[in-house]
Amino acid sequence: MAQGQGDYRILHEAALRDYLAGVADLAATLGGEPASWSITEVGDGNLNLVFIVKGGRGGIAVKQALPYVRLVGESWPLPLSRAHYEYLALSRQAELAPGLVPALLHHNEALALTVMELLEPHIIMRKGMVAGSQYPRFVDDITTFMARTLFFTSDLAVSAAEKKQGIAAFAGNHALCKITEDLIFTDPYRVAEQNRWTAPYLDALAAELREDMDLHVAISRLKLKFMASPEALLHGDLHTGSIMVTGGETRVIDPEFAFYGPMGFDVGAVLANLLMAYFASAGHERTPGERRAFEAWVLETVETVWNDFTRKFLELWRAGAAGDAYPASLFAGETGAARLEAERQAYMQRLFADTVGFAAAKTIRRIFGLAHNIDFELIEDPRRRAISEARAVRLARAMMLEVGAFPTIADVTAAARKLRDWQPEF
Amino acid sequence: MAQGQGDYRILHEAALRDYLAGVADLAATLGGEPASWSITEVGDGNLNLVFIVKGGRGGIAVKQALPYVRLVGESWPLPLSRAHYEYLALSRQAELAPGLVPALLHHNEALALTVMELLEPHIIMRKGMVAGSQYPRFVDDITTFMARTLFFTSDLAVSAAEKKQGIAAFAGNHALCKITEDLIFTDPYRVAEQNRWTAPYLDALAAELREDMDLHVAISRLKLKFMASPEALLHGDLHTGSIMVTGGETRVIDPEFAFYGPMGFDVGAVLANLLMAYFASAGHERTPGERRAFEAWVLETVETVWNDFTRKFLELWRAGAAGDAYPASLFAGETGAARLEAERQAYMQRLFADTVGFAAAKTIRRIFGLAHNIDFELIEDPRRRAISEARAVRLARAMMLEVGAFPTIADVTAAARKLRDWQPEF
Repeated sequence: MAQGQGDYRILHEAALRDYLAGVADLAATLGGEPASWSITEVGDGNLNLVFIVKGGRGGIAVKQALPYVRLVGESWPLPLSRAHYEYLALSRQAELAPGLVPALLHHNEALALTVMELLEPHIIMRKGMVAGSQYPRFVDDITTFMARTLFFTSDLAVSAAEKKQGIAAFAGNHALCKITEDLIFTDPYRVAEQNRWTAPYLDALAAELREDMDLHVAISRLKLKFMASPEALLHGDLHTGSIMVTGGETRVIDPEFAFYGPMGFDVGAVLANLLMAYFASAGHERTPGERRAFEAWVLETVETVWNDFTRKFLELWRAGAAGDAYPASLFAGETGAARLEAERQAYMQRLFADTVGFAAAKTIRRIFGLAHNIDFELIEDPRRRAISEARAVRLARAMMLEVGAFPTIADVTAAARKLRDWQPEF
Repeated sequence: MAQGQGDYRILHEAALRDYLAGVADLAATLGGEPASWSITEVGDGNLNLVFIVKGGRGGIAVKQALPYVRLVGESWPLPLSRAHYEYLALSRQAELAPGLVPALLHHNEALALTVMELLEPHIIMRKGMVAGSQYPRFVDDITTFMARTLFFTSDLAVSAAEKKQGIAAFAGNHALCKITEDLIFTDPYRVAEQNRWTAPYLDALAAELREDMDLHVAISRLKLKFMASPEALLHGDLHTGSIMVTGGETRVIDPEFAFYGPMGFDVGAVLANLLMAYFASAGHERTPGERRAFEAWVLETVETVWNDFTRKFLELWRAGAAGDAYPASLFAGETGAARLEAERQAYMQRLFADTVGFAAAKTIRRIFGLAHNIDFELIEDPRRRAISEARAVRLARAMMLEVGAFPTIADVTAAARKLRDWQPEF
């Protein structure tokens, strides 16, 4: 499907219509006369153009990368090659976690353009959570996605040679990694033009983050781990805005930040965004306590996401580790099997510590950095918004600085529950 | 200098003479008629052909990779591309640690052939240590080499983008990494055809290594770190057989195992080979105690290698860290400077723990794996050899299993000193 010919140009509506009409498979999928197709630009992300195209027979989603950050404009250039890495990651995820990513229909490397199945009536999970919706399929699907994509691209499942090839294949996506390095692991902890927060309520907290040297050491260790621990192929941006859901389906989208990094970064992203939805929930109440059932579901989901992910990851490992790590020949017999099983548990415990740290980092950046989320942003009253945000930050600071205080996921949810009605002083 | 044309063929003496005669610079360096040049094959390594060529005016060293492991034969193929990675690493090391690697004179990618300055009267350091020689320049030179090559290729010194490019540039050298993964991190701990040891004395110890599941977990964690922690560009095979010395000069040679890996692997290799020379020394005595001064120098060298490496590495870090890790903007002011300095010390402490573990792994493989070293092999009496080896293994096991018992390098040398006259029971 990769074509690679021709020069890049931005395809606005008319040009896109012509382009799609020229690709027989896509034209057939849409059906009817090209002139009759409806084309709507719906991109609400920060980086790209996204079109929904509908014809007499069916619809498709078209994503085209722009040579700059859409949110900021041409002053912040960003390489088109990210569309290549997104396509590469999506292809790999489709093999490893079939049915949990959108089907790929077409890719044009030169145009940085990818066509996927139209997900309907799916909505962005974050929007649903702001509205207080629960998603019964979510835990099973996201834990399958994470367990399979992370395990099968790790040293537990592939040879060191294959792993190195994978790392090299994604090494060129460094510009997207750099965004994460700056916006998540650096800027929220220093004076940076793009930072913003709910002023004046969080001014003091923002100043504390800039002064707290223990926190600066902790975030710097996480940054180094992010840069230099290629454990597995990550999605790289696995928040609830990268997940589309219905009551019965889950699809993970937008892996343009994909690279080989530490597994805890993906798992931590999911947990952080659930926890932020939990703390934001109070701000969306119209009558006190009306969202208690939703909030209980969110915390239960935090626990089961970690627990089911762990269970599935371990099942894959036990069932057939074909990688070069922990060679089976070193763990023969009953004693060997028992010792290896203990080491698997220790491995997951180390991964949990990473996950807790990365979840904390993902939370703080959404409250003090450039990119905020609608969980908090849609709380109109700034004081109520700041209260929700301060609760989330208090938990995140503890998670980053006192990793030892959170040996299990139940310790995280217990701490979150305690902060549900905590009143910050401002 | 890279040429890349033409097909690979093994250059034996006549063909090599013709080839060198055709490269004007080399012919001029040698001087005189090509027919008068003396060509001697001197490769005593495990993998390649090495020729010393001398003419009327000067000499050169020529190294050509064979498409198989020389030690084993054509039944063990090995990619010629290793000559490319060796050339790449040597070029980088020459920039970063000038004067500490042989000067590069010529490289032909297609022939997997590299021509370097002839090191004369340098000898392989391991040979000198077997003879009981001391090398007063060694500590300063090897610590400069390690501090500069490791620091300047790490996230402390380069951007994440440059680091990823470096990792990708060496990712193709996985066949050489695989040799290390198998021969150092796996085979000595299981039944493997190529293993050998000083039988019958070490039979029981060999069996213990195969049964000790704590050791199997420890070596597997080290293996995983070797495979998935690209901290810096490593030499990858930094033992005393890869170092050429005179009383006044040190040159590091043969970086064909180069790749991005954990820094402790290089530092640990140096320390392990010094410690093995220390334990082997008793086996080379003709009269009791005659090598005590040499042995004291070796243990002092172990300490100063670590301490001077640490000091130089930290000096480079303090002087100007231009990398993306530990951004200066997060450690401003006096408080920030003090906290960053504390973190630098903590970083070195983590690196020391890695170093201790890798040093242990490098020791055990030389006594039970495929590739032994002359420190022990030249002890003719097998019982005396086994005694020296058993002392080294006892220290190595402790270093691998009880890393916490070795918080400083002085704890390592103290433990070595205690084992100097320990008599194993066999």
